[in-house]
Order: sequence, then structure tokens, then C-alpha cells
Amino acid sequence: MKNDTMKELIVLKVGGSVITDKFSEQPKVNEQNLRRIVKEIGSAYDKDRMSLVFIHGVGSFGHPIVKRTGIHEGIEREEQLIAFAETQRLQNELNNIVTKLLIEEGVPAFPCQASSFAVMDSKKLVKMDIEAIEGLIEIGIVPVLYGVPAYDKKQKSSILSGDQIAPYLGSRLNAKRIIHGTNVAGIFTSDPKKNSKARLIPEINKENIDKVKEYLTGSTATDVTGGMFGKIMEVMNVGIEAQIINALIPNNIVKAIKGEGIGTIIRP
Amino acid sequence: MKNDTMKELIVLKVGGSVITDKFSEQPKVNEQNLRRIVKEIGSAYDKDRMSLVFIHGVGSFGHPIVKRTGIHEGIEREEQLIAFAETQRLQNELNNIVTKLLIEEGVPAFPCQASSFAVMDSKKLVKMDIEAIEGLIEIGIVPVLYGVPAYDKKQKSSILSGDQIAPYLGSRLNAKRIIHGTNVAGIFTSDPKKNSKARLIPEINKENIDKVKEYLTGSTATDVTGGMFGKIMEVMNVGIEAQIINALIPNNIVKAIKGEGIGTIIRP
Repeated sequence: MKNDTMKELIVLKVGGSVITDKFSEQPKVNEQNLRRIVKEIGSAYDKDRMSLVFIHGVGSFGHPIVKRTGIHEGIEREEQLIAFAETQRLQNELNNIVTKLLIEEGVPAFPCQASSFAVMDSKKLVKMDIEAIEGLIEIGIVPVLYGVPAYDKKQKSSILSGDQIAPYLGSRLNAKRIIHGTNVAGIFTSDPKKNSKARLIPEINKENIDKVKEYLTGSTATDVTGGMFGKIMEVMNVGIEAQIINALIPNNIVKAIKGEGIGTIIRP
Repeated sequence: MKNDTMKELIVLKVGGSVITDKFSEQPKVNEQNLRRIVKEIGSAYDKDRMSLVFIHGVGSFGHPIVKRTGIHEGIEREEQLIAFAETQRLQNELNNIVTKLLIEEGVPAFPCQASSFAVMDSKKLVKMDIEAIEGLIEIGIVPVLYGVPAYDKKQKSSILSGDQIAPYLGSRLNAKRIIHGTNVAGIFTSDPKKNSKARLIPEINKENIDKVKEYLTGSTATDVTGGMFGKIMEVMNVGIEAQIINALIPNNIVKAIKGEGIGTIIRP
């Protein structure tokens, strides 16, 4: 069964802000973006040359109900159990839409609900038995994971985001690359919304990491940029190449899957 | 977190022939049965006195596509990968309907997709890390599992039916009782459809198992009844009390959850 293990494995994560209407208080798909993205995946996925894991965020299918009911901070009141269950059901509803479209594009997209077996502790993913997922990949399936509410040993419930699943799985599965499809073009020397001189950093590696730190931890905005730098360090420490691309721009996902160096590439 | 472990755990399995229109070639819920059954579960589930795991079959959401594409016998052709993925998506669609109705009845019914972590081998379930499910039960959640297509080490894909999940989970979770809600009233001395003298056997235990064997393995119908006797032996060997009830009859699920000795009870 290990005949497919020579293929390169790509983990593609696309944010909820891309595939849903993130400002909607009701669960609402961004149909235009989603349809374009599944077509891009369908066209770029080459089963003979790669294995693929797709992870999607949940945007308006998750954030409003979670914010309203507080289940990301744990469960303290009886009625939060219902909110916890309903949140999962909503995420499955979104995943059903996503996998249906992917299947229509000829991608064998198999839903994988992480919270049926993931264990968290103090908001961190600490356990996931991935033998079934490894098997599914080996037989040629594209597992599709997504953000979910999950059991937490410490606080009963937490949110297990796609952003936590991606590096965990990427590392355990020894992925070649983790592509993060976001709503920004990558990492910039400063905030491009505020500074017209902000430049995209095409690659972050051991050589320029100190320079990047300088860019991102300028004395004026320590909190925000410190957070971003922390995230980059986390990504580097996973030990897998990561690529941050703007998935709002048509064809960027195709380019990234095919290996083009768009956006920012973070090398471990 | 182990404060709820004193509660009795009941595993309730309801067959796909009860909650779906099993003769339909298209996925079709039996709405009348399903609505009645979720109401019965909602009324009988007493969170202070019991923990509950609900498992449902898939009927017309699974059997037609599986029969058409042969994925229960493994995957040999490329296009079966798509059928495998689509079958899972369909089961999630049914589960979404079931959990939505249960949540509306006040039951914290949390979908648990077994195939995201179950490993099978030659059609048998051989591995499932249940730490998350145990945790979910402890915090007061009612996990809802269901029949799914799953990864099989030997033949790539198999069907993991609710009938396999129920004894596996019941045993691992040390359940007090497994209730099988079916479309028959229990085990009979002979086929009640063919023999007007057939009598229901209210209890099968060590004392009368030989007599039951005589009833069920009469020389005229060795295959069929031998199969049924084999199933009973399997249930006995799980080591958990099992109860077979007719879930088509209103209030039977309530009675069974509350501990009434209707149908056939099989004691280990």
C-alpha cells in the first residue's frame, strides 16, 4: 500500500475569509470565490505527481456562533453544549458544500471531521491519530479537513482552526509544502494598507530572518507585528516550507500548487 | 473531568431501514419515522442519569450508491475514488439532517464521522482512537455516529456500518446496554412471516442459548438462521447487554432507553 509514498504531498489551506462572506452574521458562502477556487484546485491537482490535503476555514459558518456563545473559551453552562453541537453541525454543512463542488470537479475530496478524534489541551491540538488519513492519501483520496469545535481536556471545548490543523498535519505527514491561501499577498516590510512604501518579502529564510524581525517588530507597533513575527517563527519551526499567497487573485492557487514562487515563501 | 463516569452509558443504534426510505433509489429520509424517533430520544434522554451515544444507519443514503459502485468490495478503478468520496458526503448530508432535528429537541447531538480516524482491515474495524469521544461524553455531549465508507488496509475501502460501530464502541466505552432499533420485534423461535406459531424470545442468556440454537439452526434453513445465530453469538461475545427492539412502533425507543424489557434482550 506504500506505493504512492514517493509523490510529493501538498497541504493547501484556504481561509474562511476567502470562501465565505466573513462579514455576514448568518452562515453565507462566498460563492464566486468558492466556485473559482474549486476549479483552480481541480485544474492544478495532478494525481500522478502529487498528493493533496485540503483544509478550509469556516468564516461566517463559525465565527458568529462562536463569538455569541463563547465556546472557544470553554464550556461552563449547560446551554453551551447545544451551541457546541450546533457549531459542529454548521461546519459540516459548509464542508458538504465544499466537497460537493470539489467532487464535481473530479477531485476525490473526502470529508474528514477532525473533532471526531482530535484532542486539545488549553486550546492547543495535542493528539490526532492520523493512520486513517495516511491510508486515505495512499489510496489516492484528497482528505478535506476544516475548522471545528473540539474537545479540550482543560476547558472542555476549544476551536480547532484550520490554521492549527495545517502545520500539525503537514508536519506529521511530512508534507513538501503548506500553502496558505489568504486575503493578503504575503508578508510585507510594513503594513501595506498604511504605508505606500511597504514591499512584499518574497522569501524568509535563515539568512534574512533577522532583517524580517527588524521590519516586523519596529518600536511603534510592537504588539501587532510582534504577533506576526511570532507566527512566522512558528511556521519556520514546523520544519516544512510554507507559502503565503493571496487566494482572492484568480489563478494564484493554480500557480502555488504548480510550484511557482508567488507571495511569501517561508523556508524552515 | 471524570465526574460523570458514574452515569450509565447507553448506546442506541437505529437502522437505516427505519429512518430512511430504504426502497428509494435516491437518498430519501423517512421523515415521519425520523421526526418521531428524535422526539422519543429527546424525551427519554435524561442527562443527569445517563450518557448516550447515538448511531444511525444510512439506508437509501448509502446502499444504492455502494451497490452501484462496488466500493464495499474495495477500490480497483480510478472512478471508484470519486464514488467513495461522494458516498461519505452523502452520509454527512443525512447525519446533518439527523443532528439538526436532535439539537432542536434539546439533545447536544455532536456529529462524529468515524471514517476520519477508523482503520479497517478485510472489512473489519480494527482501530479507532476513542479518546476524543470519551472526552465528549464526559463533558455531556451525545456523540452521533453513522455508517460510513472507510479506509481498509487490505482492500483500500470498505463499508463501516453502524452495526459494526455499535458493539465496538459499546465494548470500548463499557456501555451498560446497546439498544438495536430495527424493523423487527426481536428474535423469534422461527420466521414470524412464514410461521404463525413463531414466538418472540424475550431473553437469550447462558441458560437458554442451546435451545435458541435449536430454534434458529433447524435443518431446513441452515444458511439463513445459522447467520442469525452467528450474529447472536457475536453480540453475546461483546460482553455487553444488547436489546433488539422494533423502532417502527411508537414509544419503543423511549421504553428501551428507560430500561423496559421489550423485544429481545441478549445477556452476555
